Amino acid sequence: MNEDILLENFQIYSRLSSEKGSNGMTRFFCRKCGYISSIDKHFWKCPKCGHPLDLVYDIEWSPKGRGIARYTSLLPIKPLKTLGEGSTPIVKEEFNGIRIYFKLEYLNPSGSFKDRGTVIALSYARQLGYSRVLEDTSGNTGVSIALYATAYGLKATIVMPSYAPEGKKKLIKLFNGEIVETPTRSDAAKKVIEILEEKPNYFYVAHTWSPFYIEGYKTIVYELYEDSIHVDSVIAPIGSGGLFIGLYRGFKDLVELGLIRDIPLMVGVQGVSVAPVYTSVTGKSISGDSSLADGVMVANPPRLKEIVSIIRENGCITVVDNRDIVEALKWLLSKGYIVEPTSAAALAGLWKLLNSKECSIGKKVLIPLTGSGLKMFNEIYNAILIRS
Amino acid sequence: MNEDILLENFQIYSRLSSEKGSNGMTRFFCRKCGYISSIDKHFWKCPKCGHPLDLVYDIEWSPKGRGIARYTSLLPIKPLKTLGEGSTPIVKEEFNGIRIYFKLEYLNPSGSFKDRGTVIALSYARQLGYSRVLEDTSGNTGVSIALYATAYGLKATIVMPSYAPEGKKKLIKLFNGEIVETPTRSDAAKKVIEILEEKPNYFYVAHTWSPFYIEGYKTIVYELYEDSIHVDSVIAPIGSGGLFIGLYRGFKDLVELGLIRDIPLMVGVQGVSVAPVYTSVTGKSISGDSSLADGVMVANPPRLKEIVSIIRENGCITVVDNRDIVEALKWLLSKGYIVEPTSAAALAGLWKLLNSKECSIGKKVLIPLTGSGLKMFNEIYNAILIRS
Repeated sequence: MNEDILLENFQIYSRLSSEKGSNGMTRFFCRKCGYISSIDKHFWKCPKCGHPLDLVYDIEWSPKGRGIARYTSLLPIKPLKTLGEGSTPIVKEEFNGIRIYFKLEYLNPSGSFKDRGTVIALSYARQLGYSRVLEDTSGNTGVSIALYATAYGLKATIVMPSYAPEGKKKLIKLFNGEIVETPTRSDAAKKVIEILEEKPNYFYVAHTWSPFYIEGYKTIVYELYEDSIHVDSVIAPIGSGGLFIGLYRGFKDLVELGLIRDIPLMVGVQGVSVAPVYTSVTGKSISGDSSLADGVMVANPPRLKEIVSIIRENGCITVVDNRDIVEALKWLLSKGYIVEPTSAAALAGLWKLLNSKECSIGKKVLIPLTGSGLKMFNEIYNAILIRS
Repeated sequence: MNEDILLENFQIYSRLSSEKGSNGMTRFFCRKCGYISSIDKHFWKCPKCGHPLDLVYDIEWSPKGRGIARYTSLLPIKPLKTLGEGSTPIVKEEFNGIRIYFKLEYLNPSGSFKDRGTVIALSYARQLGYSRVLEDTSGNTGVSIALYATAYGLKATIVMPSYAPEGKKKLIKLFNGEIVETPTRSDAAKKVIEILEEKPNYFYVAHTWSPFYIEGYKTIVYELYEDSIHVDSVIAPIGSGGLFIGLYRGFKDLVELGLIRDIPLMVGVQGVSVAPVYTSVTGKSISGDSSLADGVMVANPPRLKEIVSIIRENGCITVVDNRDIVEALKWLLSKGYIVEPTSAAALAGLWKLLNSKECSIGKKVLIPLTGSGLKMFNEIYNAILIRS
């Protein structure tokens, strides 16, 4: 991939987006090869070069209503019926002189931040007239998709590794979702492509590629802004990086709209077992066990280049292991936050950075607490009260 | 109990409350014997006659901020640090020409509406300087109390029947709560009294008696009002009746404040196995199995008289069994609501009343969806996908 072309196309993308070049339409745009098309036909990746697609559309600041739908004028499409996603609480904590703003994303309808993306992606699937949706996931996205699918009258097929938490599998089935199990997460990614070849009438959500998810995650930042909270840095777990990119773009929108001046420091956290972003940024290879943070074990994030470029421009990256995660999870539980281990990884990352000189996170930090511990209380119970 | 005395004292209570007779102070008041005292000393029931206590205090409509704390001017005490309780979403559904407004109370921090009461009750315990709290419960209240206790630096002892859902027990332990198991729910109620006699320095929450919980539940109605939603009726499950009374008093406050004109029809739903309110109101005794609605199996609600008087004045009552509950739960799951069976009982009650002439619920109905299914997905999975 030629970085210059990437940059040039990114500028086209920004111009299209900010100078209202899109004439009120939402378009797919490939920032690698420049491909542009209407969204009347769904592509889960660029049909020309295979790169992840972005969405180009006009934005306007006119919040109205509640939840995600409040920001319809800043979203690529109008979300269908709300299920209560968005407008999550922010709770403050003090730690070592740092004020942490926890955004309780685990209080979304399916128990994770994924709902902010799923509501957009499945509204789009319904708009195009699909009746079946297909996805590969390690868990939370599957629950989220199964929930919105059943509410929107779609049938969901979820491909997931057999070792995914039992609770998540049961929830998918309770939402009338069909589960296909594979030995590993990467087998699941292969399996969906096989299914899609056989059944081209399925809407492949492809959340790790999907620009709809990224646009949905931006609303976290809009809510922060409307709560009049200014932070020096944002610390988020990075798996596929959708949340991380979404947060960045949310701040970028606010800058472009003239509502804020600067984007906070963007801090990513990965687990030591699977840390492609950390390796790309630092050049260091690492080892260890971070299997508890199952939500961030994505070996090949499709948008790796963009994540790395955000971090190089204005961020930093750190890694944590199971021991760090368990300590952070214990602390969160003791403060009344019932989150899953992946969510605790971000706090563990903050602790790491306190003791290092890698980057200066400042005095006010946003941490989105991404997923509910209620979906995997057995696993958390074992990790906290049995294993440790 | 002499009904005339009850009525007379109720009038004193109302006068004290509405004519600002409380001079800015919050007082305990017994509507049976007229006992009045400051809240500087905690009583979980009237120290003179053993009746449940109420709280008398001035109210003023000046909402400000988010969640429960938004309504501090309408609450008996100022809540301590928020954990994100309140400001829950409202989602609309249409059913047989009826518009149902579901209030997603299961998206509170511990996964149930109880958090609205617990935040007030434990703020009070902390205000009085207690360091230990004690409670008997079948589940949700235990999780809620353990969560707020750990966040507020209190140690919680939760007495619960051994058959309570495994998930709820594990969550209480994860929040550093101590669990004492008893054979039945009524044994748990006896056991706390024994513990309290040994350890008088424990704060006995007594949520089925507590006026703090009732005052906290009123905020559901204030939020409905602020969302500009007017309903003809409210349908809620009745266990101890705290929620039901709280909703009623919330509407009553709004009438007294001149913000609304009428209180909607108050519809209570009980399970056929344990239905003291139904029996009191109708004189009929019933049988059957409603064990799935474990949250409403309260044989002797301390405020039975008040519940019955609300229903006689402006409400009705119905009963449902496991089959009704499973049908309602399936419907709710198919629409994307991940609730526990007790929550589904209210919808099952609505369906019952559609097919009867007992009472006319009108065209717009509020149903609070009380508890999250995530805490008991195993039990729900078995009830929906294995048993039925």
